[in-house]
Parts: sequence; structure tokens; C-alpha cells
Amino acid sequence: MTDRLDQQLDFLVEIDKLKSITRASPIADGTRKENSGEHSWHLAMFALVLSDQAQPGVSIDRVIRMLLIHDIVEIDAGDTPIHGADAAKADQAEAEMRAADRLFGMLPDDQRDDLRALWEEFEAADTADARFAKALDRCQPPLLNMASGGGSWADYAVTLDHIDTRVGVPAKRGAPALWDRVRSRILPYFAAR
Amino acid sequence: MTDRLDQQLDFLVEIDKLKSITRASPIADGTRKENSGEHSWHLAMFALVLSDQAQPGVSIDRVIRMLLIHDIVEIDAGDTPIHGADAAKADQAEAEMRAADRLFGMLPDDQRDDLRALWEEFEAADTADARFAKALDRCQPPLLNMASGGGSWADYAVTLDHIDTRVGVPAKRGAPALWDRVRSRILPYFAAR
Repeated sequence: MTDRLDQQLDFLVEIDKLKSITRASPIADGTRKENSGEHSWHLAMFALVLSDQAQPGVSIDRVIRMLLIHDIVEIDAGDTPIHGADAAKADQAEAEMRAADRLFGMLPDDQRDDLRALWEEFEAADTADARFAKALDRCQPPLLNMASGGGSWADYAVTLDHIDTRVGVPAKRGAPALWDRVRSRILPYFAAR
Repeated sequence: MTDRLDQQLDFLVEIDKLKSITRASPIADGTRKENSGEHSWHLAMFALVLSDQAQPGVSIDRVIRMLLIHDIVEIDAGDTPIHGADAAKADQAEAEMRAADRLFGMLPDDQRDDLRALWEEFEAADTADARFAKALDRCQPPLLNMASGGGSWADYAVTLDHIDTRVGVPAKRGAPALWDRVRSRILPYFAAR
């Protein structure tokens, strides 16, 4: 029988695979695509540093935990680029549920339930904590695309209208002033198209 | 004049460079070396999942914050492999202090002071929170080396005695039962040499 600590260590070694899940956006210097492990670190730092952009009542420590685990299901389900096609979204949601069953299911029952609930809260984006976490997840890629001279915008022929809809709407729900600033930083790229 | 939010965003884009700092240990599948950005995410997950290994009074949320920022100075100072030579250690400490001045100095003064103090607490390893954070930082690379069939142990011709001294001592100070289990997991590698 595997005890609690062995279950935890097996889970921690298994989630190392998140470092091999490649995202659509490049890292800031444009030399390669970002992976979902380092992305999760970067977003946790966004929460830590941009805490004064959160709505009243948001727990930054809960947001940090949420962002640390928000992409773990990608180990089985892969990354879904925000500017990619809509067609496969239902299949993707199912694959992510199965991934959550398997991956969080490696943990002791209490931790499985806690992390599963935290991930589902992030996905639903119905609480203030989750809305702030989602907003940060929307604000980081545009900054990396801008730093690298276009990044995934060029790959997907993205327009500013497209960004205002797919990225701006959820970003504004959780962090309106932050989104305004990020948008003002990316305008020069689109003005030059 | 750059306002608070611009300072924060400039810092967050700057620390993206941590994703390009290469460490001595491979990721678990052995395909490449780990970078310090994804390493910081992985350690934060260790803190979250292994919270019941912490001594009484440890704040897991503070440990998570500490681990998120603990390697940021490597952006300027580089990584120092634990199994590398001792000669350059004083120079390294000086380089890390200058790196902390520059990097945390990009933030608004209150955040600069908070994150600098948290990093110095980690480095000193004199509080219960910092000792637990250090212990996790010592326990993760052996698990990745083991998963990848030897990893940096083979590169540096590391012995079990060497590990017991450099890795085991600080690991046991912060998380004794955890270190015992990690050590039992890596024994088969050294028994086979």
C-alpha cells in the first residue's frame, strides 16, 4: 500500500510533465515558446506583485494557489490556444475533466478534493478570487507577445477587435484598471499593422 | 515619471528572464535541463502539497511566496549548482546582492522592501518558514535526478556521502521525515554504483 507521503511525492514527480507542455505565446525574448510550468510561476508572480489591482475581498494567497494548479490538467489534455479554433472546445472540456480525475486523483483524498475544487472554481470564474486569477491569465500573454514583437498574434493573425473580445472581456471582469494599462501597452503593435 | 503599475509591469516582464536560467538538474524525463522559472513553480507546488511535513507554526502561504521569488537573483547572478566547486561562493553572494538591488529595486519601494526581506530570510534560513522552504529546495532535485536515471549526480560524480552532507543536512533541518523518504527513494541509484 502506498502511504500519504508516497502519494504526494508521486504526484509531485508526475506534474513535472507540465514543463513539457508548450503554449502558443513565446517567452519575452522570443527565442522559444513558453511552457505551462514556467507560465504558472509567472502568473503566481503576477498575483503577488499586482495584488493592489484585485477587487476588495480577494485573497491573494488563494489566487496564487489557484494559479499554481490552473494548468495541471494540460498534462493530459494539452494547451488550448485562446486565439485558436472554437470547434474542439467541448472535447477539450471533457478531456480536462478526465485529466483532473486522473491527476488530482493521485493525491490523498482530502488534497484531491481541495485541489479539484480550487481548479473548478478557477474554470467557472464565478468568484472574485477566480475572476482575478482569470484576469491575470489574460493579461500576461499580451505582455509577452508585445515584448517579443508580436508573438502568437502574428501566428494567428489576431486583430485588436479579437483581443478586446476574447482577452479584454474576462480581463476587465477581474482587473479593469490593469487591463486598461495592458491594452495601452499593446496598442502600438496594432496601430502599426 | 513611471507610476506604480508601470513599475510593477516592467518588473514582471523583466523576471521573464528566469525562464532562460538553466539549472544543473534535468526535468524528470531527462530530455533537457530544468530552468529556474519552472523550478520555482515546482517548488511552490511542493510547499502546497507537502504542507503536513512543515514544523508547527510554519505559514505555507509565506513559504510559497518565498519559493516563488527565491531564485529571481539568478537572472543577473546565474545558478550555482549545489554539487559544483566551492571556490566562487563569496563572489556569487556579492553578485546576488547586486542582483537583488537591481531586480527588486525595479518595484515600488514598499514591494521592493517586502520582497527583498523575504529573499534575505530565505537565504539566511534562520526562521521556521525559511528552513522549510530550503528543505523543499533540497528535496526536489534528487527526485528529478532519480526519475531521469541519475541526472546531475552523474555529471558531477556525486556520492551518497556528498548528498548526506550538502543536501541531507539542510533538508533535515526543515523537513526531517520528508528527507528520510526522499533519501530512501534515491538509495537504489547509489546502491547500484
